[in-house]
Amino acid sequence: MTVGMVGVGRMGANMARRLVDTGFAVTVLYDRDPERATALAAELGTRATTVLREVTAAADAIVTVVSDDAAMEAIFSDDPHADSLLHGSQGSIFVNCATVSPAVHVRVDQRCTARGARAVEACMASSITQARDGTLYLMCGGDRAAFDVVRPMLEQLSASLHFVGGPGKAAEVKALVNMLMNINTAGLAEALALGHALGIDLTLLRTIFSQTGANSRVLETDGADMQAREHDVYFSAAHAAKDSGIALALAHAAGLHVPLAEATKAQYDAMVAHGLGELDKSGIAELTFADRRP
Amino acid sequence: MTVGMVGVGRMGANMARRLVDTGFAVTVLYDRDPERATALAAELGTRATTVLREVTAAADAIVTVVSDDAAMEAIFSDDPHADSLLHGSQGSIFVNCATVSPAVHVRVDQRCTARGARAVEACMASSITQARDGTLYLMCGGDRAAFDVVRPMLEQLSASLHFVGGPGKAAEVKALVNMLMNINTAGLAEALALGHALGIDLTLLRTIFSQTGANSRVLETDGADMQAREHDVYFSAAHAAKDSGIALALAHAAGLHVPLAEATKAQYDAMVAHGLGELDKSGIAELTFADRRP
Repeated sequence: MTVGMVGVGRMGANMARRLVDTGFAVTVLYDRDPERATALAAELGTRATTVLREVTAAADAIVTVVSDDAAMEAIFSDDPHADSLLHGSQGSIFVNCATVSPAVHVRVDQRCTARGARAVEACMASSITQARDGTLYLMCGGDRAAFDVVRPMLEQLSASLHFVGGPGKAAEVKALVNMLMNINTAGLAEALALGHALGIDLTLLRTIFSQTGANSRVLETDGADMQAREHDVYFSAAHAAKDSGIALALAHAAGLHVPLAEATKAQYDAMVAHGLGELDKSGIAELTFADRRP
Repeated sequence: MTVGMVGVGRMGANMARRLVDTGFAVTVLYDRDPERATALAAELGTRATTVLREVTAAADAIVTVVSDDAAMEAIFSDDPHADSLLHGSQGSIFVNCATVSPAVHVRVDQRCTARGARAVEACMASSITQARDGTLYLMCGGDRAAFDVVRPMLEQLSASLHFVGGPGKAAEVKALVNMLMNINTAGLAEALALGHALGIDLTLLRTIFSQTGANSRVLETDGADMQAREHDVYFSAAHAAKDSGIALALAHAAGLHVPLAEATKAQYDAMVAHGLGELDKSGIAELTFADRRP
């Protein structure tokens, strides 16, 4: 099986490196920044292209890791005059890894199906290091038979692999994961801010949280950073706002009352409005601590 | 050291049993329900009283486990005509375990100090079973020297013991723990409700949450119960509303903007308003699932 990569930013590039390391034939790379693709092609001894249809032509499976809904719609454009991965795609399998709206995955799936191609979602809940090490956490969905075909490749990329359902379902699960992670993060920022206002030692407070019903994964990953104001970006506040927005749109469409998801989205939107969108999501503590307010 | 117990409901009774098991001289029991104290006194071979000042007279250290602020104010009344633990309390050490407002602990401390008595807070983040087994999680505060005197007793009651600061501080930490636990719980109820609305398998979704940034202690303790609608009370929604209210009052007094704490308090208040206050806190999922709404 030959593999093409579309989108070789930090995540995509590391996934390509990992696939080469594990013996996959990565035959073609594409990025909207041609220099990025060219540089990685030189590193990996493969070729770059600036034409999407050449990616489709040069690979059996095409892994896409683009930035957002618009980029995803563009690479899978069904405008007959646009360059698109869909050209000549009969028999191709697309493995779409970007965090985009579930509805976009559903549309891409429909366009692929109409051309005899198949789409698999492989949504990621991990970051750059895990991409390089092949230890991503992958939530997969879409075409089950196509998933089974690319599974050996996905297993080389991941430490954990779940197939959760048809088109859009993996993206929905990813949105739910991030919605809940963001709620827990926003709540943690409030609790630490109140502890600080009360003069409580925050290191001791975090220890106590970790030993009680207040414990959470984000306490481990973000608690000390909130205390120390270390907000080097790992998962940006702007990204959190986007993902919480996807989940909130799903909740509204389902007619659900989700006040915590609403409040969390509003906090991350406020970060973006205050110019703090490129801080890590832990930067939400900059909104809640009385002596830090922007 | 002789020990008296005030408030022998399920928690207090189990703490008394544990102290007797570990060799402490539990010399007197009091409860506002005299029959409860009498029954436990018969079980433990000690005596019950209906007079608070007799508790103070009969013990060196008096452990109190009452239900709320009003009960706490009542047992430490400084009305000279009221029966009160403060009568004849010079030299006594009070160990106050109820979850009450920090300000009440501060007032009790002041009244004790004025009479030559000392107050220790020992706020609990655990429940009935842990009380019986001597594995409570205790957040302690108040008079440090008095804490050191009663520490051997507290160690028999607890698996984990932290001294966090002066009067009111342990209650503040406890309020923070419960505020954050309640936020995480309310958020989890929203995420599971949305997963359900989207037709996602909730058992798989909980597994994925547990392996990602969405993980939390309440996912472990409450996730399956939310899915299965098992809301037998362990920590009631009414209790959650009370504790979130204590934290929210502290946040407002500090001038903090805590939208998630606000939204959580409103949800638990809504449970109480809908007559669901005596469900476990996991019952908040009865508000969020579209097909369960009260």
